Amino acid sequence: MTAASLHRPLPVTAVPRWDDEADVVVIGFGAAGASAAIEAREAGADVLLYERNSGSGGASGLSGGEIYIGGGGGTEVQRAAGFDDPTEDFTAYLKMAGGPCADDAKCELYGREALSHWEWLKAQGIPYRGNYLPGKHIEPTGDDTLIWSGSEAAAPFCDAAKPAPRGHVIQFTGWGGGRKLVDILEARVRALGVRVVVDARATALIVEDTRVVGAVMRIDNRDHFIRARRGVILATGGFAMNEAMRRKYCPLTFKINDPIGDKDDGAGIHLGMSAGGDAVHMDQFLTTCPWTIPEPQANGVFVNIAGQRFINEDCYHGRVSRAMLDQPGDRVYLLLDSAHYSEPFAFARTSIAATGADWEEVERELDMPEGTLAATMAFYNDHARRGADPLFGKRTPILTPLDQGPFIALELNFQSSYFSFFTLGGLSTSTDGEVLDRAGAAIPGLFAAGRCTHGLPAWGHGYSSGLSLADCTFFGRRAGGRAADVR
Amino acid sequence: MTAASLHRPLPVTAVPRWDDEADVVVIGFGAAGASAAIEAREAGADVLLYERNSGSGGASGLSGGEIYIGGGGGTEVQRAAGFDDPTEDFTAYLKMAGGPCADDAKCELYGREALSHWEWLKAQGIPYRGNYLPGKHIEPTGDDTLIWSGSEAAAPFCDAAKPAPRGHVIQFTGWGGGRKLVDILEARVRALGVRVVVDARATALIVEDTRVVGAVMRIDNRDHFIRARRGVILATGGFAMNEAMRRKYCPLTFKINDPIGDKDDGAGIHLGMSAGGDAVHMDQFLTTCPWTIPEPQANGVFVNIAGQRFINEDCYHGRVSRAMLDQPGDRVYLLLDSAHYSEPFAFARTSIAATGADWEEVERELDMPEGTLAATMAFYNDHARRGADPLFGKRTPILTPLDQGPFIALELNFQSSYFSFFTLGGLSTSTDGEVLDRAGAAIPGLFAAGRCTHGLPAWGHGYSSGLSLADCTFFGRRAGGRAADVR
Repeated sequence: MTAASLHRPLPVTAVPRWDDEADVVVIGFGAAGASAAIEAREAGADVLLYERNSGSGGASGLSGGEIYIGGGGGTEVQRAAGFDDPTEDFTAYLKMAGGPCADDAKCELYGREALSHWEWLKAQGIPYRGNYLPGKHIEPTGDDTLIWSGSEAAAPFCDAAKPAPRGHVIQFTGWGGGRKLVDILEARVRALGVRVVVDARATALIVEDTRVVGAVMRIDNRDHFIRARRGVILATGGFAMNEAMRRKYCPLTFKINDPIGDKDDGAGIHLGMSAGGDAVHMDQFLTTCPWTIPEPQANGVFVNIAGQRFINEDCYHGRVSRAMLDQPGDRVYLLLDSAHYSEPFAFARTSIAATGADWEEVERELDMPEGTLAATMAFYNDHARRGADPLFGKRTPILTPLDQGPFIALELNFQSSYFSFFTLGGLSTSTDGEVLDRAGAAIPGLFAAGRCTHGLPAWGHGYSSGLSLADCTFFGRRAGGRAADVR
Repeated sequence: MTAASLHRPLPVTAVPRWDDEADVVVIGFGAAGASAAIEAREAGADVLLYERNSGSGGASGLSGGEIYIGGGGGTEVQRAAGFDDPTEDFTAYLKMAGGPCADDAKCELYGREALSHWEWLKAQGIPYRGNYLPGKHIEPTGDDTLIWSGSEAAAPFCDAAKPAPRGHVIQFTGWGGGRKLVDILEARVRALGVRVVVDARATALIVEDTRVVGAVMRIDNRDHFIRARRGVILATGGFAMNEAMRRKYCPLTFKINDPIGDKDDGAGIHLGMSAGGDAVHMDQFLTTCPWTIPEPQANGVFVNIAGQRFINEDCYHGRVSRAMLDQPGDRVYLLLDSAHYSEPFAFARTSIAATGADWEEVERELDMPEGTLAATMAFYNDHARRGADPLFGKRTPILTPLDQGPFIALELNFQSSYFSFFTLGGLSTSTDGEVLDRAGAAIPGLFAAGRCTHGLPAWGHGYSSGLSLADCTFFGRRAGGRAADVR
């Protein structure tokens, strides 16, 4: 008998002893695992929650704590800011954001239930200031609540679904509210009596015929055999930190160099597959570079090495960043005029590739042939002055002419500039968080949520901030509730 | 116990009887399965070969019968035509063709051994006329042997590896030499005493612990339990005809509508995964539209709906076609002047979207803003007259100005024009055709070859004609030889 591993479950007949047991065993203590544990516990289950690190957090703890919420006419924050947000438009946007990879059933369910999920988040104690911050922000630098966090107001999204801002950010001054979000969820987890074990790494599932009945946890260099009476919930994150998995399933990520995550090694995806789970859309990833900060830069124009524009730059920064990677060569240029240039943040690792008194000079400095970049910018400015972008549909107010010299081309180099990324592909799950096999049937006793699954954030070209935490918390809850309900 | 299926192997303890047995059981009778069966039989194994259809062929039988061969200084055909083809350049090209998905070990092995594989092909009785046909052809319409079948002479490939034509086409007048190729391999299979069973569909593998020891074959509506003493070889093709699999793993193929294959339902990929096999690069596919025929059209220029060029059009037609799908919108335009226009073949399902006395008129007819398409063509013609394409590096002789009016824009619409495709992702295998699990270990008793595996043709943007048949026949042989050698 080959040893059990991430890739091969342990038959229950080979379990030497049970070291612990619970109704529901949750693996991973980010937002998905925390939400699953809370819901399972509130449904009356005895819950064990394991985390490989020494504390909670995961990638959620590194995030901005922003959750994508809308529909039902809008949250009270959206409505106070004057935005009506019908479920139909919200759902349509979720599907467009998922593009060819969208899970329609998840989009529809979340489209209907996001407002009640908003009430749940607040009930957990997550504070929201309740105000609206207009403009184009990656995260608010203050403690503001509602921001535009996607491509809602940009073509082609705005033509198919009425736009509304839907990024709901935890009240927290500065970047990184995700840590506070997880802290609050952790407090709930502990208050409810979930038994939390840290420094515990899952090494195999335990199966009885086709049913998952537990997990082998590695703690203090010893295998612990943990029985799950109702179900195991995988919430271990994506595989941005696993180079071997990236090479096999998501090799485009090697164009760039800054994975986001906290030991996101894809373990849960392997565990799920070891029990027959199906991993889907494994080639998808979110990437973004902080090109919209300082904010004036959001008015810039991108060209590829052929001097061509390639997207309406008023889309979500991640959609624009993902389109950059589709361009020929190893870089793109962000073009700015003196009215819209500010010193870029050092962490962006951009550099000034050219400057000029006119766009012709910038073109020459970049060694581009005459009539490329300069022609692109003449065309762009001519139309921008009239409020139009006939090529890509960029819209006001970001659609401004760039005609105040001197002019600047910032180089965004895929290898050396900051392009963060995390993976979006993962286990196929039902809307109840059941892990599905390749025939589409639920694997008894096995559930999953968050970035080890394929969920709301499904397509790199359509990602919007807050989609992943929405998915983690909402479908984490679904998985917890369903697992607790197994008899 | 859940019933065995494509997704769940049958434990040997549940096998009610053995209906037949052999040393090596091959599933699928295209070029990969035939090559595997020949090699296994010649190594002394008793071989059973099953095919779900009523006869041999598979996707190989629908192909042009073109095999990508080079290295070692070149075949006698390459050398007679004046092409030296060092192994180093051949291997470098194979790796570039695989792009981010390349299997370096397979590229290196085939790089070294393609010449001896060429001898093997001829020894099976496959005839080659031995001549060289210059120009840009999808397949020769005569019975010529050697053609340029990739992007060897185009940027960026030509800068990294010395170009040589490497598409070796079976002697056969007209298109479709693949049928003849498979017929010849079938004759060898039968002459060697391989036992062939048609109308037989694999429904599950049979396992003893982690070892594959047979397969359940559905024949005449009854399950046959087939024992494989040494190994099972999966050679069942890709999943271009399986819409559910495409939706989950390769959704970009829904942009287009013409799968190539012969019931290519991905069954072998599922069978391999059911035994713990790893499926990799499942998002990759080859697509091509016949835009280079009639041949004068190969001189055309492609623009997207923004009037921008996007690639050096002297690349392989499939690489150009794949880049088309990356463009915004649902179509691209092939621009031609009267010196290079011929009536397109009806099967291409293209249409004339605009004509004009000058490019400005074409631009207006296409409702493109002034200064887009016409500016693109003015720039292109200006440089083409001097033999240069500073944007994308297109080269002579195809780099010709398009300045002989009247002018034409052909619409290639992704949904309605002919865009054929087949899938490239599949089981991860060793260079000996062993199916590898997710930890990279060989699964005892299980082998695979052809398009149910990830092999030489690994990346849609780098495909070259003949790569898939090279992979099927060469790595089919490797799998057959290795399976026969198991004791």
